[in-house]
Amino acid sequence: MSPELPSGLPATVQIREVGPRDGFQNEPETIPTAKKIELIDQLMRTGVKRLEATSFVRADVIPQLSDAVEVLHGIDVPDDVSISVLVPNERGLDNALPHRDRFDEIGVFCSASETHNRKNVNRSIEESLAGIDALVPRALAEGIKVEAVIATSFGCPYEGHVDPEKVFGIVRRLIDAGATEIGFGDTTGMANPVQVGRFFTDAIARFSGEVLLTAHFHNTRGQGLANAVAALQAGCTSFESSFGELGGCPVPAGATGNIATEDLVSMLHEMGVQTGVDLPSVLAAARAVAEVLGRPLGSHTLVAGPVEWR
Amino acid sequence: MSPELPSGLPATVQIREVGPRDGFQNEPETIPTAKKIELIDQLMRTGVKRLEATSFVRADVIPQLSDAVEVLHGIDVPDDVSISVLVPNERGLDNALPHRDRFDEIGVFCSASETHNRKNVNRSIEESLAGIDALVPRALAEGIKVEAVIATSFGCPYEGHVDPEKVFGIVRRLIDAGATEIGFGDTTGMANPVQVGRFFTDAIARFSGEVLLTAHFHNTRGQGLANAVAALQAGCTSFESSFGELGGCPVPAGATGNIATEDLVSMLHEMGVQTGVDLPSVLAAARAVAEVLGRPLGSHTLVAGPVEWR
Repeated sequence: MSPELPSGLPATVQIREVGPRDGFQNEPETIPTAKKIELIDQLMRTGVKRLEATSFVRADVIPQLSDAVEVLHGIDVPDDVSISVLVPNERGLDNALPHRDRFDEIGVFCSASETHNRKNVNRSIEESLAGIDALVPRALAEGIKVEAVIATSFGCPYEGHVDPEKVFGIVRRLIDAGATEIGFGDTTGMANPVQVGRFFTDAIARFSGEVLLTAHFHNTRGQGLANAVAALQAGCTSFESSFGELGGCPVPAGATGNIATEDLVSMLHEMGVQTGVDLPSVLAAARAVAEVLGRPLGSHTLVAGPVEWR
Repeated sequence: MSPELPSGLPATVQIREVGPRDGFQNEPETIPTAKKIELIDQLMRTGVKRLEATSFVRADVIPQLSDAVEVLHGIDVPDDVSISVLVPNERGLDNALPHRDRFDEIGVFCSASETHNRKNVNRSIEESLAGIDALVPRALAEGIKVEAVIATSFGCPYEGHVDPEKVFGIVRRLIDAGATEIGFGDTTGMANPVQVGRFFTDAIARFSGEVLLTAHFHNTRGQGLANAVAALQAGCTSFESSFGELGGCPVPAGATGNIATEDLVSMLHEMGVQTGVDLPSVLAAARAVAEVLGRPLGSHTLVAGPVEWR
């Protein structure tokens, strides 16, 4: 457990930057591999200690990430940065393992709602969990840590409300499978702060002794940072975010993705919660990716600049 | 005091829509008066019970609001909607009073920081307070309620940190002057949720028996809704917001203004806090103003749509 501030909040949290995977995969225009490598190299020098770099997904499903091997071998990873790659299934792990020396963690995932899981990966939740059961021990045997992300943990665009008990049942299965970290994804931005506060209070009470619990919010309805504060108040100390607020769907204009790393870092630092991330460096990386993508991004601090005054 | 929900939050809050004043005044292109009247008429039928319609500011200072009289006489105000107008000084009140039958409240303001006050109205805080001292009794004598807004209550872009004790000293002066409501403005989006929680806890303990306390947040660094939740958790039950997230500075693209009414309403309703505002109706008004302005707005729910699932 992190020490507490006078506000009752954790004194420090960790952030995983997921823009190079969760952000880039939603970009309709191909980003040159060399640019990805530059941006990831820049991100790894912001003080962030965890970064999801790419995905071993089928190239015909997400062509944008078909350069996973080139990216992994091109980036210059500092000793203290942990690289993760998304692995959607056993085939993905087969393709990732030959490059084992280039990453430290994998991410696996399933949804908390049947309909979303079916639409996302054309499997039932049980089929996804069976795949994870088969996959995780192989990763652990190679010394790879495993984050298992549960998408639609706070609501499903097809099924609506998702019962936390159903999510917690999946958590138990994922822990039993060997996952070392559980990520809770608010995939389409349906969570609200009251719900998030209750959810993390319960999740931490049940599982924090066994596994790292990570919050993954989207800013779809502008509530992303409010949800992050609610999770923080409940004791969550691990967050995922995306520089520039990349992620989600870039069309229509203004539709937003993951919470912006720079907005999260700015808010946390102003609240006295340390992240180890240098805000001006993240802002520089966000400016760089905005230039590469050639469009305005959803990030607020990127436009307004840091508060600066303390 | 509002009854409490199981979450400890107030069961109901009131919202003042300030887009037609705080939003429109920042728009560089003149909005036709007839369009303003249409939009205000639409907003007054969303269930919102308080609306700031315009400002009696000098036409050469804010040409956009030089049609204040036409707007006030053009709008069709339902019996249960309270209209306020901003009155920057005694001259503004002189110009407003002949139209006394067209509004119920006035807004007056000063800043909590000398530099911001000087840059905003070319007066010292003391000079502004003296003006308010002279102005408020005249308004009260006409049966007009008075909201006094303290700009830069949570930080000043020129002076940085603002001591809450300084703000509370100004509150006392404004209450003594006869103000019936105090608005706390985070004028350039420098507030963070920890600060806001402490501030409103203290402000409510000291002043809520005497006067209505209202939170006015900007979303400059993406923290607007997180700050709103912090104020709500501290017991604040009165908020100001702007449809479409209008306000602030429209240049550069992406710089955001007040928190969006539709994002605030969506979040509050999802949390179980009632506002009396019909979300689809506000979204329709936000769509209408986006069409009038001809540009994408900062509002998130306007793009994503309501959560819908309960």
